[in-house]
Amino acid sequence: MRTRFILIQTSHAGNVGGTARAMKVMGFDDLVLVAPRWANVLRREETIQRASGANDVLAKARIVDTLDEALDGVDHLCATAMTPRDFGPPTRSPREHFRQLLAGASEGTADGAPGRPGGVAFLFGSERFGMRNEDVYRCHACLSIPTDPSFGSLNLAAAVQLIAYDWRLALGPMAGGVAPASAGPRLADAASVAGMLEHLERALVAIDFLDPMAPKKLMPRLNQMFNRAALQEEEIHILRGVAKAMLETAARSKR
Amino acid sequence: MRTRFILIQTSHAGNVGGTARAMKVMGFDDLVLVAPRWANVLRREETIQRASGANDVLAKARIVDTLDEALDGVDHLCATAMTPRDFGPPTRSPREHFRQLLAGASEGTADGAPGRPGGVAFLFGSERFGMRNEDVYRCHACLSIPTDPSFGSLNLAAAVQLIAYDWRLALGPMAGGVAPASAGPRLADAASVAGMLEHLERALVAIDFLDPMAPKKLMPRLNQMFNRAALQEEEIHILRGVAKAMLETAARSKR
Repeated sequence: MRTRFILIQTSHAGNVGGTARAMKVMGFDDLVLVAPRWANVLRREETIQRASGANDVLAKARIVDTLDEALDGVDHLCATAMTPRDFGPPTRSPREHFRQLLAGASEGTADGAPGRPGGVAFLFGSERFGMRNEDVYRCHACLSIPTDPSFGSLNLAAAVQLIAYDWRLALGPMAGGVAPASAGPRLADAASVAGMLEHLERALVAIDFLDPMAPKKLMPRLNQMFNRAALQEEEIHILRGVAKAMLETAARSKR
Repeated sequence: MRTRFILIQTSHAGNVGGTARAMKVMGFDDLVLVAPRWANVLRREETIQRASGANDVLAKARIVDTLDEALDGVDHLCATAMTPRDFGPPTRSPREHFRQLLAGASEGTADGAPGRPGGVAFLFGSERFGMRNEDVYRCHACLSIPTDPSFGSLNLAAAVQLIAYDWRLALGPMAGGVAPASAGPRLADAASVAGMLEHLERALVAIDFLDPMAPKKLMPRLNQMFNRAALQEEEIHILRGVAKAMLETAARSKR
């Protein structure tokens, strides 16, 4: 299964190198950095030293400005955060979540319809501040690595190592690694869900339902609701069609 | 259960610090160094930096000259080695071995005595050469962490992190782990979902998105989508609020 590791606003070069090594040793190679502290972080000496031979992962890695640009082709997002957020996705241990995910179980859905995701991304926040709420809200699950309650200070590259390990073991042995053909409709990827939500937000403002000056938690809530639904591509088209009709009606009402 | 981590002939100070942190985050604090390269490794700047607050583990740590001196009070030894040795103990994945060990299985213990061990030690060889054969021979099991066959280069502190994690999970949860954000919202019942859908249908007609003469499968599709989302009561209120605002905007547009 397509697997991407996304580091958001990482500040230590050593952690980028350590992440590349941690990924490669578990057979993963798709790394994206969102707004790292150092623009040249992939070429810094400390990075290369800690990567310890995982140079191909560094060479393939992309640097982007926003999380949106990091989400093409992935349709299931896992936050990693020590602190659960209100209005955020459900908090689960990695092992528990991976079991559910790969069983194709869609806990909380009425008919258990959606199958396995096509691509998974694991998001890691900055060393200092962890993940921002708005990034956590976009995720389908918040993975919480069990740690000592009195010392939860897990190094970033160590967290990547643990997630990569559990995910590798959940996927099954490394050789071959051919995913079973997925039945059922194509799930929308995270980028198209984000695009739809942005469209819908404009429409909700236009019909005077959402006050942009006091948005409260409306959009995060809707985001979570649609995440639970595991939207299909066709449903994205429907929802965008609804948003478009709302915007047109609102425009007519103001003529 | 008494748990000790033993690093043999470690040469990088950063790995000693990283090991202390990796242990502490999983609730372990018994570290012994056998003949490290630097006699002052516990006080080196890089060690302390990478330990990132696990100073009590460093303060308690012992440095000894031989493996024998590191083994007091432990009765089950696990080697960690990438390469199985002839005449060595059985090679197992950590997870598999821990399950057997804690189930009280006697297989693999030196004397075949039943029951759980009183104390366990995990042995890690030097960064360059791994474990010496004669040290592996003393162990009850050789733990092999599953890695990519083409890149098995696991960092020492990362290996400690993975073993500490699997062992912690095998021992059972730590008291006071991360609690979920909320006790779980109330799900909407089928009647209120149906009421919301009827409200939404009228709104979709009003904004000219749904043609009541040719409705196709729009409402059944939306129904399926909302079913998968397992709507909460509060979300029903939100969606009805959106439908109401759509109806009002449409009414204004026709004045």
